[in-house]
Amino acid sequence: MQRQFTPYFETAPAHQKLQSPIKLACWLGIAVACALVAPAARGQAPAANPPANAKPSFVIIMADDLGYGDLACYGHPTIRTPEFDRMAAEGMRLTQFYSGAPVCTPSRAALMTGRYPARSGLCGQRRVLFPDSTGGLPDSEITLAEALAPAGYRSICIGKWHLGYQPKYLPTNHGFAHYFGIPYSNDMGAETAGGRIRGWPKTPLIRDLAVIEEDPDQALLTRRYTEEAVAFLREAAAGQQPFLLYLPHTMPHVPIFASDKFKDQSPRGLYGDVVTELDWSTGEILRTLRETGLANRTLVFFTSDNGPWLAQRLRGGSAGLLREGKGSTWEGGVRVPGIAWWPDHVPAGRVNPAIVSSMDLFSTCVALAGAALPSDRPIDGLDVSPVLLRDEPGPRQTLFFYRDTAVTAVRHGPWKAHFQTQAGYGQPKPDLHDTPLLYHLDHDPSEKLDLAAQHPEVVTQLQQLATEHAASFQPAPSQLDEPK
Amino acid sequence: MQRQFTPYFETAPAHQKLQSPIKLACWLGIAVACALVAPAARGQAPAANPPANAKPSFVIIMADDLGYGDLACYGHPTIRTPEFDRMAAEGMRLTQFYSGAPVCTPSRAALMTGRYPARSGLCGQRRVLFPDSTGGLPDSEITLAEALAPAGYRSICIGKWHLGYQPKYLPTNHGFAHYFGIPYSNDMGAETAGGRIRGWPKTPLIRDLAVIEEDPDQALLTRRYTEEAVAFLREAAAGQQPFLLYLPHTMPHVPIFASDKFKDQSPRGLYGDVVTELDWSTGEILRTLRETGLANRTLVFFTSDNGPWLAQRLRGGSAGLLREGKGSTWEGGVRVPGIAWWPDHVPAGRVNPAIVSSMDLFSTCVALAGAALPSDRPIDGLDVSPVLLRDEPGPRQTLFFYRDTAVTAVRHGPWKAHFQTQAGYGQPKPDLHDTPLLYHLDHDPSEKLDLAAQHPEVVTQLQQLATEHAASFQPAPSQLDEPK
Repeated sequence: MQRQFTPYFETAPAHQKLQSPIKLACWLGIAVACALVAPAARGQAPAANPPANAKPSFVIIMADDLGYGDLACYGHPTIRTPEFDRMAAEGMRLTQFYSGAPVCTPSRAALMTGRYPARSGLCGQRRVLFPDSTGGLPDSEITLAEALAPAGYRSICIGKWHLGYQPKYLPTNHGFAHYFGIPYSNDMGAETAGGRIRGWPKTPLIRDLAVIEEDPDQALLTRRYTEEAVAFLREAAAGQQPFLLYLPHTMPHVPIFASDKFKDQSPRGLYGDVVTELDWSTGEILRTLRETGLANRTLVFFTSDNGPWLAQRLRGGSAGLLREGKGSTWEGGVRVPGIAWWPDHVPAGRVNPAIVSSMDLFSTCVALAGAALPSDRPIDGLDVSPVLLRDEPGPRQTLFFYRDTAVTAVRHGPWKAHFQTQAGYGQPKPDLHDTPLLYHLDHDPSEKLDLAAQHPEVVTQLQQLATEHAASFQPAPSQLDEPK
Repeated sequence: MQRQFTPYFETAPAHQKLQSPIKLACWLGIAVACALVAPAARGQAPAANPPANAKPSFVIIMADDLGYGDLACYGHPTIRTPEFDRMAAEGMRLTQFYSGAPVCTPSRAALMTGRYPARSGLCGQRRVLFPDSTGGLPDSEITLAEALAPAGYRSICIGKWHLGYQPKYLPTNHGFAHYFGIPYSNDMGAETAGGRIRGWPKTPLIRDLAVIEEDPDQALLTRRYTEEAVAFLREAAAGQQPFLLYLPHTMPHVPIFASDKFKDQSPRGLYGDVVTELDWSTGEILRTLRETGLANRTLVFFTSDNGPWLAQRLRGGSAGLLREGKGSTWEGGVRVPGIAWWPDHVPAGRVNPAIVSSMDLFSTCVALAGAALPSDRPIDGLDVSPVLLRDEPGPRQTLFFYRDTAVTAVRHGPWKAHFQTQAGYGQPKPDLHDTPLLYHLDHDPSEKLDLAAQHPEVVTQLQQLATEHAASFQPAPSQLDEPK
């Protein structure tokens, strides 16, 4: 199927569009810092022969609701994923990689800002943004695209944004030169048993700021996103500008669909077909990078936004050996696949158990780009390039897990304490644990054996970490509340 | 540590030791068949330049109580297994490979005979053989070593036999030229809280038929087994005789021990150390095969005898995404890792979901050796060389699961029906299901969603298969009963 693409490099760079005074002040600081730390980066070599110190480009591919156990290289028995397996064999497979939250919106906010979502207001009682939500990612937040722009990066976003549907919240108003995709979950515009929800639009497919289709054929989404991404990469390869391609897929969030080529192919059924199409898609991205010569100057990272939606029975995925799924801060809700690929830079065939958060992708990309982290606000991400480039232990010892604005659990080293637990998405009443549950995740990744009674000193330490963290800032006003 | 080895090729071939008239009759039949189907095999080329049609040798490595999820390449997050991962990357990882039974003795009987253990009497109410057991694998059974002998093979066994402790049942009286190892589980000679069990010997280390040490240092067992195996392979490489090396490790069955070099190294704790030492051991085997030029004429298969002993809490392993563990015919008790490696023959980097049983290893090795299956008895194993050599779908559609002599479950295609279920080892009372439970394992490997009510016709079909199978033979008298 041939389609017409908007050339991605014809319009003004993203950072020229920025208008907020706060943002401009931030940019100024970042630009000055970049000038100090990476002067070489401003001189660009000719297209045919990029300089050895060329800034790396970044491709971040994120599946929606894909579980820790849903890829063959993470142990799934009947979903064949040869492209992900090859990506892992040529790169690094992280076994303790965490999404920023157990549900969509806050997870994406964490990835885009390098900050706990409570700092940006992208969490709350409704848990995610809905089509009737008036809120979104505040303009005062600095996205990864915006953080990279002063270092000369061009960014595009293809796929599910879910950080605000109103135009002012869409990617092109958050540092991305272009956007193509569905702005929220693919079940949110669907007809329900009682008819379409009043006031909710049909599922919109958006290019930049305009709705170009209503209710697009969801079976074609993975393919269309992939075609857009490949076209962008081919254009990018013709130039010298480093880039960020952010590709958050709509699948395999329910309702799931695969295109004809993949349908009825997997022993795992439709869910397997859908994951196999994502496998194909990722293979196309990597193939394009190899063919265009971009491979050894592009870091590709694949992950998921949260664990599998277990309540969907066999239409949802598997968290593998981990407990529970989406919506829960048990490991199955937050630990997800994490594969890094960058020929000649990320060592091949490594399996690294470092604790890494999706927030760390923000800080790592910024560091690798020679850009500067925002200095006017706390950034929770850490630079994990020692993990990715040298297979070293990670810098991260501690990670906090949230339900809405409450810290429900904390990981510190091998230990995880739960103050509040809940089964997966759809379970309304969490259990509170006045005496926290305690698990040694390195020994017991399935969280089966509560060791709180044996290790009260560890419980105390983790409680203190959580208390200090919670006291260190006031959550921003929620963007997710019911519309007024 | 330098140790003295008995040269393995100095003594008479195993089949010259056979004395039973029944066995001799069997051999005669097999030898005639071999002469008909594989005449080329009897002429041996000089050591330096084996003929292109040389018979393949076989190395079967089996861990004890290692779970489906305990290797990095099967998804464990904190046990690093670079050698197993490399073996899988260079070979084939089977994702639906089944041990012959959920506990030690019948599982080993199935592997050694290619038959359901109820046919040989290696199952019963005691479930496994104990040090006071007077029974063992009957002389009338034909082991893999015995089936290969007429085709010119020499076999040795290093490790945990567990098919009878009395001399007449030991490997050297079942077709193996040599034996070195502990004849049953490593917890069976241990002191208990109430002292050593009356009449039970200390854990014996046996060479051929003689106890050479009592209570050997278990931390050295994996290393000593490995040294024996490597020495055997180096001797075998100097000759032309094809061989079977059967290496059933004692680890990681509790009590678990690792040698000093591996102790306190794994984030997973001691269990991880122990698995990492098995990983090292397997790497040594493969390295030796490469160095000696045996690699491309040796099929290596790695597996486990049953699922993890979950009742051991963190001293036992993980079944990954599978339900339950050792002792149960839920998947976690019977589905185990299965990795095939044979450079230039097993295609590299494949992941195959074919249903394969350890009984099939018997039939496959016999076929690849150009030997003949015993024709005077039912053999339950199938030749799965199309799976291993050509990555094809498997020939096996149906597999029956037993507790003792009762068929508790049956798998047929993607479906599995449970007639009787139980939690892992140590749970005395199974649940009977008058209406069987039904799971679609390709879609639902974790056995979470009972579909019996939706698919009564499948339940009926699987019940019928089980009934016909159970009626097709009378279980042999149990060898496991309490001593008279």
